Amino acid sequence: MIQPLKPRLEVCPSPAALHLYDVSSSIVVIIDVLRATSTICTALFNGADRVIPVASVEECIRIGHEMHAITAGERDGQIAAGLQYGNSPYEYPREFVEGKTLVLTTTNGTRLLDMASGAAQIITGSFPNLSQVCNYLIQQAQPVILGCAAWKDRINLEDMLFAGAVINRIKESFEVNCDAALIAETLYLEAQHDLFSALKKAVHYQRLARYGLEKDIRYCLTPDIAPSLPFLKDKALINKSTDC
Amino acid sequence: MIQPLKPRLEVCPSPAALHLYDVSSSIVVIIDVLRATSTICTALFNGADRVIPVASVEECIRIGHEMHAITAGERDGQIAAGLQYGNSPYEYPREFVEGKTLVLTTTNGTRLLDMASGAAQIITGSFPNLSQVCNYLIQQAQPVILGCAAWKDRINLEDMLFAGAVINRIKESFEVNCDAALIAETLYLEAQHDLFSALKKAVHYQRLARYGLEKDIRYCLTPDIAPSLPFLKDKALINKSTDC
Repeated sequence: MIQPLKPRLEVCPSPAALHLYDVSSSIVVIIDVLRATSTICTALFNGADRVIPVASVEECIRIGHEMHAITAGERDGQIAAGLQYGNSPYEYPREFVEGKTLVLTTTNGTRLLDMASGAAQIITGSFPNLSQVCNYLIQQAQPVILGCAAWKDRINLEDMLFAGAVINRIKESFEVNCDAALIAETLYLEAQHDLFSALKKAVHYQRLARYGLEKDIRYCLTPDIAPSLPFLKDKALINKSTDC
Repeated sequence: MIQPLKPRLEVCPSPAALHLYDVSSSIVVIIDVLRATSTICTALFNGADRVIPVASVEECIRIGHEMHAITAGERDGQIAAGLQYGNSPYEYPREFVEGKTLVLTTTNGTRLLDMASGAAQIITGSFPNLSQVCNYLIQQAQPVILGCAAWKDRINLEDMLFAGAVINRIKESFEVNCDAALIAETLYLEAQHDLFSALKKAVHYQRLARYGLEKDIRYCLTPDIAPSLPFLKDKALINKSTDC
């Protein structure tokens, strides 16, 4: 029997490279490990109705007001002026977020979501929902682009580590012919037994640690602690995990 | 005694990210391991007067004719129509290249050289001139950008490995606060004992191996086999190694 062709799996290490990839035929996984996509899957896992990602603080305030929603977002590690909450997953426990809408703006993650708007499907990925992402991608059997949000277009370690974790788990089901994917998996294999220590040299770790956010970082590196599947539909992320 | 501030050392993993870096105050090291910068340092080590990098085949033919120079360049692994020689370092032994001018066009390396034209200084780096590059950068004590030529703007393993080798050797003399540098060094440390095997999974390895170029690849991964220091001056690369 002839083996059917496997769908391709690629890693886009920064939004600055997204134009090189064919998003229109692909499931794009938006990855912003510290902390946007970790927080998004946490809010949905804890029962939020939806998370609306927006590019600017102004838009966040306007849409939050229109929808009587929670407004959240940070700039330079502080809750942005005019918003109510920050980017920490610990701010969104079930007793607070259940049944509510969260409007969220972040430095990099929401921008990449915007840029990938022509994709066949968009989901978000992070360690807290690692298995949900992997299971969904295998089940869908479509071409995949793991899109790292990076930091102001500069490649970062934490998003590459997550991309590597996904590749390590699902590569047998895909055609992987992409050095960024090879690099991501190598980094993950090297770091997998102690992700926290591996991340200590990263620029973003140092930035967040200055704000006292080690606890957030540990959470954001914990696999499957918030197993939801954020799926973009009508400009909002909803939890699709009940389908898969 | 107060320690003087160390100059910064960064890695730019692809030409698509070069605009994020301040090239004007930096020494930019152009890295195109397979095979442009390996061939350039080889030709200069073997006594070529200079190597003139140009963007197009047409320009290569025109300048080569004007200067009675050797014209060289490939497209898709074959000598480009109208040119005399290819990109292999083995094509440029001393008995052929000594005292001559080589006009060279390549897919990625010459493009990055063009893009970095505003840099304070431009040199080229590859494993065959690794120590020359490291010694020069330490001696100069200026900010450094290790610029990977990549493959049509996509990050590649071989250029990152070389960047990692440089960082591993000289990081004590610099301030390194850049995830791309951290990633490059991690990749190098993982691969250093058998660079050839590490590269076997890379896209470019597979591309060149199809053309039977394993011998070229082994050469291009051999440290210090052609210890020259290509330095850009008046649009030509000359060997500056006698200065340092």
